[in-house]
Amino acid sequence: MVDCTIIIFGITGDLTKRKLIPAIYHLLKRKKVDKLALVGVARRQIKMNKLLNAAKPFIKNLDAKVFKKLQNAAYYRPFNFNDPQGYSNLKEELEKIERKHGLKGNRLFYFATLPHHFGFISHNLAKKGVTKSKGWARLVYEKPFGHDLKSAKKMNKSILRAFKEKQVYRIDHYLGKEIVGNIALVRFTNRIFEPLWNNKHIESVQIILDEKLGIEDRAKYYDEAGALRDVVQNHMMQMLALTAMEEPKKLTAKRMRNEKANVLKKIKVEDILLGQYDGYKKVPKIEKNSKTETFAAIKLRINTKRWKGVPFYLKTGKKLDKKDTSIHIKFKKVNCLLAYCPRETNYLEMRIQPELGFALQLNSKVPEKNIVVPVKMDFCHECIFGKETAEAYEVLLEDVIEGDQSVFVRNDEIEYAWKVIDKIRAKKLKVYPYKKGSVGPEELKKFAKKHNMRWRI
Amino acid sequence: MVDCTIIIFGITGDLTKRKLIPAIYHLLKRKKVDKLALVGVARRQIKMNKLLNAAKPFIKNLDAKVFKKLQNAAYYRPFNFNDPQGYSNLKEELEKIERKHGLKGNRLFYFATLPHHFGFISHNLAKKGVTKSKGWARLVYEKPFGHDLKSAKKMNKSILRAFKEKQVYRIDHYLGKEIVGNIALVRFTNRIFEPLWNNKHIESVQIILDEKLGIEDRAKYYDEAGALRDVVQNHMMQMLALTAMEEPKKLTAKRMRNEKANVLKKIKVEDILLGQYDGYKKVPKIEKNSKTETFAAIKLRINTKRWKGVPFYLKTGKKLDKKDTSIHIKFKKVNCLLAYCPRETNYLEMRIQPELGFALQLNSKVPEKNIVVPVKMDFCHECIFGKETAEAYEVLLEDVIEGDQSVFVRNDEIEYAWKVIDKIRAKKLKVYPYKKGSVGPEELKKFAKKHNMRWRI
Repeated sequence: MVDCTIIIFGITGDLTKRKLIPAIYHLLKRKKVDKLALVGVARRQIKMNKLLNAAKPFIKNLDAKVFKKLQNAAYYRPFNFNDPQGYSNLKEELEKIERKHGLKGNRLFYFATLPHHFGFISHNLAKKGVTKSKGWARLVYEKPFGHDLKSAKKMNKSILRAFKEKQVYRIDHYLGKEIVGNIALVRFTNRIFEPLWNNKHIESVQIILDEKLGIEDRAKYYDEAGALRDVVQNHMMQMLALTAMEEPKKLTAKRMRNEKANVLKKIKVEDILLGQYDGYKKVPKIEKNSKTETFAAIKLRINTKRWKGVPFYLKTGKKLDKKDTSIHIKFKKVNCLLAYCPRETNYLEMRIQPELGFALQLNSKVPEKNIVVPVKMDFCHECIFGKETAEAYEVLLEDVIEGDQSVFVRNDEIEYAWKVIDKIRAKKLKVYPYKKGSVGPEELKKFAKKHNMRWRI
Repeated sequence: MVDCTIIIFGITGDLTKRKLIPAIYHLLKRKKVDKLALVGVARRQIKMNKLLNAAKPFIKNLDAKVFKKLQNAAYYRPFNFNDPQGYSNLKEELEKIERKHGLKGNRLFYFATLPHHFGFISHNLAKKGVTKSKGWARLVYEKPFGHDLKSAKKMNKSILRAFKEKQVYRIDHYLGKEIVGNIALVRFTNRIFEPLWNNKHIESVQIILDEKLGIEDRAKYYDEAGALRDVVQNHMMQMLALTAMEEPKKLTAKRMRNEKANVLKKIKVEDILLGQYDGYKKVPKIEKNSKTETFAAIKLRINTKRWKGVPFYLKTGKKLDKKDTSIHIKFKKVNCLLAYCPRETNYLEMRIQPELGFALQLNSKVPEKNIVVPVKMDFCHECIFGKETAEAYEVLLEDVIEGDQSVFVRNDEIEYAWKVIDKIRAKKLKVYPYKKGSVGPEELKKFAKKHNMRWRI
């Protein structure tokens, strides 16, 4: 069994309260770690207990004994990221805490600060030996990881000057272990899919991430980012990579990330439609003449043998008519053996939101007639296994502690994805308006017509 | 629209009352024919109205007006099959009836007599010109069609001396249009199946026809036939042929029957286990030391390129623990990419009894673990389309009237199937006892072990 010290930079933020502290509590409760210490680091003067108590409402079925255990092992250290002495002090503090709790010196550094601090803090941690101990040192970075290729490269460079890639965990929480696992396992543990998973049998692929919500309290960040940087560069590129990657020899972190990177570097964007919902500019903190896109539809190709001739369509937007994240594999037509041919081809749907599951759309005979109609065979993940008990962050932290990098994004993946996004953004495309609660801009119809396709969602 | 005269030989039998008259009534009610006349023929002296009334309890939602219409067009003619003059008289009668009802001379001859009369009656119908009119003449033969290859050949010969194969409709009511249609259409209108439908991806196939019922009122016939002749030669061979046939260029009667025949002539039986349920010998009319099999398990291969190396397992029995007719396609294993490999492979189930439908067994990830478990995606035909409204016999008669031979069995198919059965029967295998309500003889376990297989049902 493992023990470790979790050091959180930027512990006073919202993420810590809502997600990280509850996740750490559950790791303790479910005995995923033997022992741990939690060290919060931020600029402000604040009591650790106050931070822990603020997280209480976000902990389900709170067990007072476990919470007490967490309180007894939790420390707060005020810390100025720019002060070199602070790092040396932190090193000493950690050693003291580890001695006190009988910990082996495994250290998990969690970066919940603003992204532009990532590189600088990492550099100093290494320089001052904070990451040197008898145990392992692993660094977890929250997204966004850069805002373009240049910044991501710079960040990767400064991190990797100090650390090895195998110490680095770039989180894309949206792709928690479950979803990554589901996409890959549906493909690779079912014999009926892999032989069909290529341009001989697949006509096109759609990857959809539609949201009903707007930008809420993230207005300032969002207006700088836009849909392309907020979700396409990370979540959608990862779903695309998982869907399109070659079969790895084993489903290990290294081999999967190799295969995903191989997809991301072969992307060729063919068409783009951007949109902005009506009223976006009136949201507080948004620029009055903002041209930030809240909607994107993209047609791209993957320049590999497997996918030659197969278009991939991506679509995402805020304030749309529904919440739906899903991947749709459209199979080619059959030879038509009947007087009336099937009006629909087969589809495999991998559903991620609102519920996890998959479905196959097949054709079935209509009684007493020699025609078929499409019918859906459904497998609802939650219906069988129940709602997921572990939250994404708990699973992700557990992975870090176990040293499993499978669902974390490697430096080259991040950079290939930024390359795609930068290229699109460089075109400075027109951003078309669309109504809240609609399916997107009017121009989406033209987009579909032009490419002779139909959106599934 | 079509009109016709339906002539039933052996109209006093149970089949006419329960199935044929209700089916003809429904053809009228649902306006599948414009006009028709019904001519019953049998040895006895009996009133047609009595026969019609006896059928009334088997007609759902009887409409008095439609029934009246049927009564007004129904005739009975006593008839001695051995009297040549009878045929000439019948010819005249038919012409009279057709004139009276303004019918075009289309004649459907339905053979519900004992099978050994089939050849003789057919021969005389042709000889005396009863089947010569201005319209078409089609002949429908009830099963069993022969009791071995020799008798079937003889029957085919005498029928085909008088008629063309395209006039001949050999009924296998078990394989009504719906089931044939479903098996073929599931395969050929779904792109995801056909590329997998071969020895590269399929490990084995099971065809199951388990019954809870015993032999009931068919004791005398059954004791002479046994399971092999009662269901394997016809129903199971047809299911096998539909499952294993090559893709026809069109789903037309001719091409489908060509492909089915090509399968049936390539069958090579490898192992057989026969059984008889305890108490069978005590059923009235059963021979006291009967060795008739009420159970059969068969391993066979189909000697074509597509199926090289793929075993087909057939299993059927009376008085078993459940009623289930289904086809199970077992796909091969996947490359194992995980530390723990999937414990089950994929299956496609085509279900025929008790309900129509199909299901896919896939593997799905277990939440929070890197393992998969088998889950079933179900498509229940009745759940979507409701219970079939038309009974098998109505659909079959409609097919005959429309001249569609797709679901009727061609002479060569019948003969190839008999060849297989004769070969098995010639071995005079031991018949093992089994308990009523069990899964079959104890020896079935050995059979499974020997072939390293597991029955799905």
